[in-house]
Amino acid sequence: MVEAIGLKASHIIKPGENLFEVLCETFELHLQIPQERSIIVIAETVVSTTQNRIIKLSDITNITPNAVQWSSEFEVEPAFAQLVLQESDEIIGGIPGMLFTVKSGILIANAGIDQSNAGGEGEYSLWPVDPFGVAEDLCKKIKEKYQLNEFGVIISDSRVQPLRRGIVGVAIGVAGFKPVDDCRGRCDLFGHEMKWTTRALADQITDVAHLLMGECDEQTPFVLVKDAPVSFTSQKISPDTMLMSRDQDLFSRIFKF
Amino acid sequence: MVEAIGLKASHIIKPGENLFEVLCETFELHLQIPQERSIIVIAETVVSTTQNRIIKLSDITNITPNAVQWSSEFEVEPAFAQLVLQESDEIIGGIPGMLFTVKSGILIANAGIDQSNAGGEGEYSLWPVDPFGVAEDLCKKIKEKYQLNEFGVIISDSRVQPLRRGIVGVAIGVAGFKPVDDCRGRCDLFGHEMKWTTRALADQITDVAHLLMGECDEQTPFVLVKDAPVSFTSQKISPDTMLMSRDQDLFSRIFKF
Repeated sequence: MVEAIGLKASHIIKPGENLFEVLCETFELHLQIPQERSIIVIAETVVSTTQNRIIKLSDITNITPNAVQWSSEFEVEPAFAQLVLQESDEIIGGIPGMLFTVKSGILIANAGIDQSNAGGEGEYSLWPVDPFGVAEDLCKKIKEKYQLNEFGVIISDSRVQPLRRGIVGVAIGVAGFKPVDDCRGRCDLFGHEMKWTTRALADQITDVAHLLMGECDEQTPFVLVKDAPVSFTSQKISPDTMLMSRDQDLFSRIFKF
Repeated sequence: MVEAIGLKASHIIKPGENLFEVLCETFELHLQIPQERSIIVIAETVVSTTQNRIIKLSDITNITPNAVQWSSEFEVEPAFAQLVLQESDEIIGGIPGMLFTVKSGILIANAGIDQSNAGGEGEYSLWPVDPFGVAEDLCKKIKEKYQLNEFGVIISDSRVQPLRRGIVGVAIGVAGFKPVDDCRGRCDLFGHEMKWTTRALADQITDVAHLLMGECDEQTPFVLVKDAPVSFTSQKISPDTMLMSRDQDLFSRIFKF
């Protein structure tokens, strides 16, 4: 049985707060002390907030011609296009009101820049700096404080899906467990060897967490997931483990970019 | 709290078995009698099997020139390419050994045709016929038998993700609850109105189920999900609710097809 428990924060988290302390307070507030083989999923917006990654659009003044072009093609504010340009690896297209980007190898709208739950009028939260490093640091501190051998951390974001209505979760930082389960070489019910299958476990765990986090005013940036069937590890997780190489990716062949 | 409980089948399900009876036996075997506000997620392979949708590749003899061309371009057997051609809305590309298709509006490898857990050597299971109808029928029967007002059914499959390693779950048939949560018009923590966000709840619930189903010899085609925060409904769910219209889809602009 997998259990997911939403942990509502005691307050709206402010820029510069200590994320580890906020998290421990939240565990204690809900009487949910981390146990072996649990995973905490943390919404990226609170990570960004504690990293002071909140920005006012009116502070963006150095707008390049490239940003002006994206802005006019997809009907977004020039300052917003400039911000997306700075924050993304690549802008690959858009629809009116939204740019589509690759950020840290992940396909995501607006380079993960979010207005919702970011703060005041005209304020945006940027994608956190080094989410894998943040996850690793929190994982170590939680294991030490609560004396655990096996524990996992996911920093999560939301992303669009191709041809499908509604966003789903994506793990943008992982520590403490293997985010992908490689089934190749194992057998099915009839003894046939699996030739292709790998499973995106971290993304699947993020999805159950996002059921409880919501996207509006739920104020639930933390979800504790118990007994997910994953392999815990103390090795550092490389972001590349979760990215598909272009030559193996079914989608790459049909993308224009 | 959301709970997901994997229900291992008592036996390997055979072509022509009655799915509703198998499901009820499984509930009783595990002492998990369906309760209000639960959702049962069912792997598509068992639906296909009970529908006798298992096919031997050697029985496919009418191979068209179009299939021969796909077969040679992406190094799959001609009979397999023919089957994919017959079963898909459109083949849009591939990688060596695998074709990429649209099936019922969903991007999926090989039109959802599966060799794993399909049966004997050279046998494949096809995508079930009318998965929304199957979900609706099962949902009604379960509500009646267990005297429930609110209950949901998902028929699930696995699919690839763009630029990302590992498959995730996708709901290919839904009944009993609203599969997509439209947040537009609601407010975030700071009172800003959400302008874009919809959430793919059925796909997210499918993901937690697939953590427990696995993809190999787990023999766990059923997962009972309790207390997922969804809106239950007795209205029939239209497949279109879950599909993104091409003019709103960020991906459509970057696809070659």
